[in-house]
Amino acid sequence: MDQPSRSAGTVRPGGRTARVRAAVLETTQDELVEHGFHGLTMDQVAARAGVGKTTVYRRWGSTAGLVVDLMTELANQSSPHTDTGTIEGDLRANALSVLGAISDGRLGATFQAVIAAATCDEQAAHALRSFYLRRIEEWANVVDLAVKRGELPEGTDGAEVIRAISAPLYYRLVVTREPVTREVAERSVTRTLAAARAGAFVVPGSGG
Amino acid sequence: MDQPSRSAGTVRPGGRTARVRAAVLETTQDELVEHGFHGLTMDQVAARAGVGKTTVYRRWGSTAGLVVDLMTELANQSSPHTDTGTIEGDLRANALSVLGAISDGRLGATFQAVIAAATCDEQAAHALRSFYLRRIEEWANVVDLAVKRGELPEGTDGAEVIRAISAPLYYRLVVTREPVTREVAERSVTRTLAAARAGAFVVPGSGG
Repeated sequence: MDQPSRSAGTVRPGGRTARVRAAVLETTQDELVEHGFHGLTMDQVAARAGVGKTTVYRRWGSTAGLVVDLMTELANQSSPHTDTGTIEGDLRANALSVLGAISDGRLGATFQAVIAAATCDEQAAHALRSFYLRRIEEWANVVDLAVKRGELPEGTDGAEVIRAISAPLYYRLVVTREPVTREVAERSVTRTLAAARAGAFVVPGSGG
Repeated sequence: MDQPSRSAGTVRPGGRTARVRAAVLETTQDELVEHGFHGLTMDQVAARAGVGKTTVYRRWGSTAGLVVDLMTELANQSSPHTDTGTIEGDLRANALSVLGAISDGRLGATFQAVIAAATCDEQAAHALRSFYLRRIEEWANVVDLAVKRGELPEGTDGAEVIRAISAPLYYRLVVTREPVTREVAERSVTRTLAAARAGAFVVPGSGG
């Protein structure tokens, strides 16, 4: 959702196992970006990563298994939420982070490949859902802080506010296939904030 | 975007050419739903539709050509916008129409297959964009009518309001892979309307 480092394979220094995982995930991402999920094969990943086929099969099982682990790694690398002191500042930071991820050639193509994979593979769908729910949960905290500061009504649903920031960007990216610009991101913040201030994100029955 | 009839092949009575097109598009949709874009082949469509291969190749050129024509047909069949007399009624009708399309097994799977195809095929992306832009343009009229009635501020961007209604539904459908329920649709209407009434959809410099 928002911007992790561009590659999955650049982290986790450690022993041989960690190095093998880093190489395999880096290669998985390369192959996804270049050929999509339907072009991803275990043998090609093993060959390109310089890792034995049996290791790749034993550890990841399938190409869907590779995608699941890649998305886990990308989520692990993603930044924590900001704390700019205002909800507008935090939501703008979130929107620009999502925009940055979408606009990054490598990361954007990775997300699009997994979004495509998820339409026909249940494991990929699960990996995608887990990734975004972790990011939504992380950023929902900025809404809770804003409610405590009195910037937004009591009972405002933080996860829903964060979903609302991202939705118009992804809608243009993968559905209407229209450009996703900084203006689109800024407008999403303005509109979501207007609705949130009007109480439209208050959960019924929350006492807010 | 919103709900056309479930199948592309059920319309356009007419001569042999129209019947061939109907059969080929119906079969294209069947194959997309069952096997996705990567499983779509010209030969299988021709065989299943009972049409000569040369006809299919000559008339549609490629599987992407089949998808382009299918999306054109689905757009042609889509309903015009409602005119319930209130912007809330019209936006609810729009949201429920989108929900109906997404929730329909055959249509929903068709959209998801084309969304997936569009991530790696420029013709499919163009077909998808054309389909949604036609639907957005059609429904933007309900916003213009609301502005004339004084329900929404002058200068409110109708196309952007319609995008905002759909965005949270598609975000859940294809990105976070969360359930898209009637409650999700209703909330999208409430939140979009709150932002629109607050002037958050007024185009800068429109005089509104």
